[in-house]
Amino acid sequence: MTLELECIAIEKDEGTSAIFGHAGFIKTVEDLYEAMVGSVPGIKFGIAFAEASGPCLVRSDGNDDGLRRQAENSVLKIAAGHSFLILFREAYPINAINNVRNVSEVASIYCATSNPVRVIVAKVEDGRSVIGIVDGFSPQGIESQDDKQNRSKLLRDLGYKK
Amino acid sequence: MTLELECIAIEKDEGTSAIFGHAGFIKTVEDLYEAMVGSVPGIKFGIAFAEASGPCLVRSDGNDDGLRRQAENSVLKIAAGHSFLILFREAYPINAINNVRNVSEVASIYCATSNPVRVIVAKVEDGRSVIGIVDGFSPQGIESQDDKQNRSKLLRDLGYKK
Amino acid sequence: MTLELECIAIEKDEGTSAIFGHAGFIKTVEDLYEAMVGSVPGIKFGIAFAEASGPCLVRSDGNDDGLRRQAENSVLKIAAGHSFLILFREAYPINAINNVRNVSEVASIYCATSNPVRVIVAKVEDGRSVIGIVDGFSPQGIESQDDKQNRSKLLRDLGYKK
Amino acid sequence: MTLELECIAIEKDEGTSAIFGHAGFIKTVEDLYEAMVGSVPGIKFGIAFAEASGPCLVRSDGNDDGLRRQAENSVLKIAAGHSFLILFREAYPINAINNVRNVSEVASIYCATSNPVRVIVAKVEDGRSVIGIVDGFSPQGIESQDDKQNRSKLLRDLGYKK
Amino acid sequence: MTLELECIAIEKDEGTSAIFGHAGFIKTVEDLYEAMVGSVPGIKFGIAFAEASGPCLVRSDGNDDGLRRQAENSVLKIAAGHSFLILFREAYPINAINNVRNVSEVASIYCATSNPVRVIVAKVEDGRSVIGIVDGFSPQGIESQDDKQNRSKLLRDLGYKK
Amino acid sequence: MTLELECIAIEKDEGTSAIFGHAGFIKTVEDLYEAMVGSVPGIKFGIAFAEASGPCLVRSDGNDDGLRRQAENSVLKIAAGHSFLILFREAYPINAINNVRNVSEVASIYCATSNPVRVIVAKVEDGRSVIGIVDGFSPQGIESQDDKQNRSKLLRDLGYKK
Repeated sequence: MTLELECIAIEKDEGTSAIFGHAGFIKTVEDLYEAMVGSVPGIKFGIAFAEASGPCLVRSDGNDDGLRRQAENSVLKIAAGHSFLILFREAYPINAINNVRNVSEVASIYCATSNPVRVIVAKVEDGRSVIGIVDGFSPQGIESQDDKQNRSKLLRDLGYKK
Repeated sequence: MTLELECIAIEKDEGTSAIFGHAGFIKTVEDLYEAMVGSVPGIKFGIAFAEASGPCLVRSDGNDDGLRRQAENSVLKIAAGHSFLILFREAYPINAINNVRNVSEVASIYCATSNPVRVIVAKVEDGRSVIGIVDGFSPQGIESQDDKQNRSKLLRDLGYKK
Repeated sequence: MTLELECIAIEKDEGTSAIFGHAGFIKTVEDLYEAMVGSVPGIKFGIAFAEASGPCLVRSDGNDDGLRRQAENSVLKIAAGHSFLILFREAYPINAINNVRNVSEVASIYCATSNPVRVIVAKVEDGRSVIGIVDGFSPQGIESQDDKQNRSKLLRDLGYKK
Repeated sequence: MTLELECIAIEKDEGTSAIFGHAGFIKTVEDLYEAMVGSVPGIKFGIAFAEASGPCLVRSDGNDDGLRRQAENSVLKIAAGHSFLILFREAYPINAINNVRNVSEVASIYCATSNPVRVIVAKVEDGRSVIGIVDGFSPQGIESQDDKQNRSKLLRDLGYKK
Repeated sequence: MTLELECIAIEKDEGTSAIFGHAGFIKTVEDLYEAMVGSVPGIKFGIAFAEASGPCLVRSDGNDDGLRRQAENSVLKIAAGHSFLILFREAYPINAINNVRNVSEVASIYCATSNPVRVIVAKVEDGRSVIGIVDGFSPQGIESQDDKQNRSKLLRDLGYKK
Repeated sequence: MTLELECIAIEKDEGTSAIFGHAGFIKTVEDLYEAMVGSVPGIKFGIAFAEASGPCLVRSDGNDDGLRRQAENSVLKIAAGHSFLILFREAYPINAINNVRNVSEVASIYCATSNPVRVIVAKVEDGRSVIGIVDGFSPQGIESQDDKQNRSKLLRDLGYKK
C-alpha cells in the first residue's frame, strides 16, 4: 500500500503555545474549554476539534477569537478525525497539560509545546491519520559539563527548582 | 529505508466501541479485564493483547466471547508487539477510558471511539509498528453559529451538560 | 510529499528496560530524574531528552553513567525534538511508569518495556518526528485454553495475582 | 475547649450509595453533576453542597429529584461549610469515585459506600466541622482460611476477579 | 479517655487562599514548592510542613516571605506531625490543587479554600492530631429556583461554564 | 452528645512503614495486594481491611505473615468500618502511595509514614469512626537558615534532589 503523506505547519504566532492531541465525542470542545479556563486565571485560548461522524464539522470554542480561528484553520487542514488543537497565551504548557489530560474524552496528547509544530498526516481513502509531529528542531549534540551547570543555574534563576 | 505499510480495519459491529492502545507485560490482559468490569455494571467486552516476547501469542480475556474473538482477530492482523484492543458494548468510551488509563501497564491510548477505526501499520523485518489510526471521517467544514447552538442544545438535551 | 524514513534500534543491554516518550521544556530532565529516583529504592537509570529550541542539545541525567551515555547516544540518533528516553535496571516498567506519567512536562509515553525497541523516524527538512515504535516481536497466533491456564498460573506463581 | 458534638445519620434508602466529601467553590455542584452523569449510563443521582461564604446556601443538582432532596436535607443538617454529598442508584461506588476524585474542586472524599453512614460533626461558634464518619458496622473478628476462600470465590463468581 | 481539644484559626489575609493537608518526609517542602511554582505563572506562596521525627522542625519554603512566615506560624501552633499548609495569592485553589495532589508525599488534603479556616486539634501525650477543619460558615438554607438560576448565570458570566 | 474516645497505637516494628486509610467493598483487599506487589520488586507487606456489612470480618492478605498478622490486630482494635491498614518493609511510603491511591475502592489515605502512628477513634453505638491520627511527634520550633541548608544538602546527598 502507498500512503499519500502531507506535512502541515500549525499556524500560530510567536509566544503562542499548542496542545495537540486525540479525543472523542463533541462534548470534548466544552470539556476542554472548562479544563483550560480553570487552569490559569487570565489564560487566553482557542480550541478546535475534528468531529468524525455525522456532519463532520470542526467544532470550536475559546475565549479569544483570533486563537480560535487559528485553531479551526489548522484542524481543518490537518483534517484527521477526532484530533484536537488548543492554542493559548498567558500560560505555559506545564500549567495547562494536567487539566487537559484529566478530560475523559482525551485519549492522547501528541505534544504540549511553545515550539513551531508540524504535523505529518497520512491520507487513507475518506479518512486521515496523524502519524507524527515535528516539535521544534533536531538536537545538534550532547550537552557538556558546562552546559549542565548552566541548565541547572537557569532553572534555579527562573525559580522553578531550588 | 522503505517501509512496507498496511491499513487494517478493526472488525466491529455497529454500536460497539473500541479502545486501542499500547501496553506491556502479559499481566495487562487481566488488569484490563478488571479495569473494564469495574467501570460500568453490565458492560460487555472482549480484550486482546499482542505478547511481544517468548511465545508471542495474542492473549485475550473478556466477558463476551464474540467481542473477545473479534478483538483477537484484529490484534492478530495488526500484529504489532504490545498493542491491545478492547471492544465493548453497553457503555460509552468516556465511561471506561479513565479505568483503562490507570492500568500500570498501559503506555498510551491511540483512540477510544465508537467510530469505524483503521490502523496504519509499518512492517520492519520481524516486527511491526502502529504508526497511526484513522478514527472515523475527515471534517468537511467549520461549524457555524447555528451549529454551535445546536451542539450546545444537544449536550443539554442529552443531560451531559447543564 | 515523500518522507525520508529511518529505523533506529535503541541501544540497551539484556535486562535493561526503556521508557520512551515525548515531553517539553529542559526542566523535564530534572523532573524525570526525581520521578525515577522516587519510584524504587536502588533503581539505576539514565535519562536523555532532546531539547528542541535554542542550543538544541541532548540534555541528560541519571545515577548510572553507562545507562546515561546509552540514552544520550540513542536520543542523538533518533534526533526528534522533545523526545526522551529513560533506560533503567533493578526495577520493572510497571514500577516506574506511573511516576513518569505524573511529570507535568510529559505529553505521551510511546512504550515502557523490557523488549528490544526500534524507533521509526521521519525526516522533515530541519526536524524529525517519531512516527512509530516496534516493541519486541509480532504475535504468531492466538493463545489456546492451555496457554490461558499457564498464563494464569504464571502470574500467580510470580505473586502478581491471587 | 469543649466541643459540642453531634452525630447525624445520612438519610438514604436501601440500595442507595453515598459519596461524602469536602470541596470548594459553588462551581462544584455543576462539576460533580458532569462527573456523575459521565460515569455510568443511566445512573440516577442527587448532589448537595454547602456553600460556605456569601449567602451560604445548600447548592444542589442531579437527575433524580428524590435523591437531590435527600442530599439537600442531610447537607443542611450536617451544615459543615464546603462539605458535599452525592446519593446515587444504578451504579456502585467504584464506578463513580474516580470521576468524582478528578473534579478540581474536590479536596477529599470521606467515604464512598453503600452502607448506612453517620457523620460526626463538631460545632465551633458560627461554623461546623466534619470530624469523622461511621461507615457501616465494626468488625467482629478476623477471617479464617475458609472465609478467605469464600471471599475469593465470591469475587470470581461475581466476575470482578479472574 | 478525655482528649484535650484546641481550635486554631489559620492566620491569613483577605484574598489569600489556603491548602491544608497531611504529607510525609522532609522532601515534601521542596516538592510542594515545585508543584506550586509550576501551577500558575506569577503565583505567590509560602509553605510550611511539620517534620514529625528527629529534630521535629517546621520546614518551610516559598517565593513570598510574608506568606511563608504566616504559614510557619500556623503550622507551629497547630503542631500536628506531618501536617502542611500552603498560603497563596494570584491564583485560585482550583488552579493549584491538582499539582499538590500529584506530589507523592501528600496523603490527604483537608481543604483548598479562600474562606477563613479554623483547625480542630486533639492533644495526645507528646503528639497532636488534626481532627477536623472549619471551612468558612454553615449553610443557612437550601437554594430556591431563583438562586439556582443566579448561580448558573454567575458561572457563565465569569466564563467558567458555557 | 458525648463521644467515647479511644487512642490506639498501630503495632509495628522499627523500620516498618504504614499506609492507613478508608476504602469500601471486600474486593479492596485483593486490589490493595496487587497495588503493593506491583509497586516495588521485593516489597514485603501485610494488609487488613475492616469489612463493614454482612459478616463484618477483618479481611487480610499480603506476602509476609508477620506483617499481615500485625495489620489484622491493629484493624481489629481500631474497629472502624471500612478502614484499611498496610504495613510494609523494603520500600518507602513514596514508592507505594501512588499505586494505593489509584485503587478504585480507596476513598482517602490518612497517612503514609514510617513514624509511630496512633489512631483516635470515636465509638458511636454499634459503629466506630476514625477521627484523627497522630503521625510521629509535634514540631518544636521553626528551622533556621542553617537547618534549611542542611536539609537541602541531605536531600542531595541522598540523591533525591539535584
